[in-house]
Amino acid sequence: MDLTDTAPTLEQQIALKAARALDENALRTIFTEARTANGFLDGEVTRQQLEAAVELAELGPTSANTLPVRYVFVESPEAKERLKPSLSPGNLDKTMAAPVTAIVAADLKFYENIPRTFPTRPEMANNFIGEGKDDFVKGFARDNALLQMGYFIIALRALGLDCGAMGGFDKATVDAEFFPDGRFVTLYLLNIGYADPTKTFPRLPRLAPAEIAQFV
Amino acid sequence: MDLTDTAPTLEQQIALKAARALDENALRTIFTEARTANGFLDGEVTRQQLEAAVELAELGPTSANTLPVRYVFVESPEAKERLKPSLSPGNLDKTMAAPVTAIVAADLKFYENIPRTFPTRPEMANNFIGEGKDDFVKGFARDNALLQMGYFIIALRALGLDCGAMGGFDKATVDAEFFPDGRFVTLYLLNIGYADPTKTFPRLPRLAPAEIAQFV
Repeated sequence: MDLTDTAPTLEQQIALKAARALDENALRTIFTEARTANGFLDGEVTRQQLEAAVELAELGPTSANTLPVRYVFVESPEAKERLKPSLSPGNLDKTMAAPVTAIVAADLKFYENIPRTFPTRPEMANNFIGEGKDDFVKGFARDNALLQMGYFIIALRALGLDCGAMGGFDKATVDAEFFPDGRFVTLYLLNIGYADPTKTFPRLPRLAPAEIAQFV
Repeated sequence: MDLTDTAPTLEQQIALKAARALDENALRTIFTEARTANGFLDGEVTRQQLEAAVELAELGPTSANTLPVRYVFVESPEAKERLKPSLSPGNLDKTMAAPVTAIVAADLKFYENIPRTFPTRPEMANNFIGEGKDDFVKGFARDNALLQMGYFIIALRALGLDCGAMGGFDKATVDAEFFPDGRFVTLYLLNIGYADPTKTFPRLPRLAPAEIAQFV
C-alpha cells in the first residue's frame, strides 16, 4: 500500500470512473429488457413514486438549466374522462385502464425561473423576452422538455415502474382542456404502472450502430 | 415452499417488478451524482464504447419505432477543425480538447426505414410522404430524436462515461458543413469523455416536484 500523499494517476482516475458503470441487471432494467407497456397489472402507483421519478429526471441536463418540462398526472376517473375525447381509438381502452397517465408538457414561460435556476447569469432570461421571439421560445421549450421526457422514462424504469408513451392523441384537445391559458403545450401522454406482460408486444427491430453512427 | 403449479399472485408479480429497481450506486451514476462535463481527463474513448452507448439508447421508445436520431462522432483533429467555425467562444476550447464530440442530428427521411422497423404496419411510411408535409415530418423527426438524445446521455453515463451537451453553436453552420444535402438536421453537440472534476461547475438548483408536477 502506497502511503505517500500523491495525487491519483490518470489511469487510477479513469479506472475509478469506469467502475461507476451499471451492471447487467441495471442495464436490463433501464434498457435491454425494458419494454413499452401496452396494458397494466392492477397494482397501485403512489404519488411518492411519481414524485421520486420527477425528482430524478429533473437532475438531467437542459440548456442553461432551463428545465421546461411539466407533468400533469391524471389519476382520478373524472380527470381520465377529461382526457378521453383526445385519445385515438387504439390508445383509448389502455389509457382509461392505466393506473395513471402523465400529460408531459413544456412550460412556455420557463424563463421566469432563470434567475433562480441559473443564478450566475440571471440576465439570460432576457434572451427569451421580447417581440417576435414566440417561435424561438416555443422551440427551445419543446426541445428541452423532450430531452427531459427521455430522462423521465428512464427514471420511471430505474424505480421499477413501466410506462408506455403515446403520440396518438389530439394535442390541441388536451391543451384546450388542461391548459386553456396557453402557457403549457402538450408533448406526449405516458401511461404508467406495472406492465401486464401478456399485453406487451414483441420488441420491434432496431437500426444497427453502423447505420446510424459515423466516425470522422 | 409451495410446490403447486399456480400462477403468481398480483402481489408476487408487483414485488418481482419492484425488485428490478436500480440500487443507490446505479442511481448515482445516471442521475444523482452525474454531472455535465466541462473539461475532460486525457483518457481515451473507444469506438466500441460509443457504439455500445448508441446500441443501448436505440432500445428506448420512439413513436411507431421511427428511430430518427443520427450521430456523427467527431474524433480527428481535421474533423474538429470543420466543427470549429460553428462554436460559440464559451464552448470552443473545451470542444476542441474533448476526446470526441458527437453531432446529434435527426434524419428527415427516417420513414424510409419504417417497413423494416415497424414491419407489422409498413404502410405507416405513407403518413410522412407527400406535398405539404415537410414541417410535420421535420417536427416528428426532431421530437423523437430529442427523446433519443435523452436516452443516449443516460446510456453514456450508464457505461461510466461523462458528457457535456451544448446548444451554444451555430446549427446552420454545422448542417452546411456536415450535412450539405439537407437530409439531416443538427440538434445538439455532445462532448464525451471522462470529466475532469476540477473543471465541473457546481450543480445548479432544480425545480421541486411540487412546482412542476400536479395530480388530478
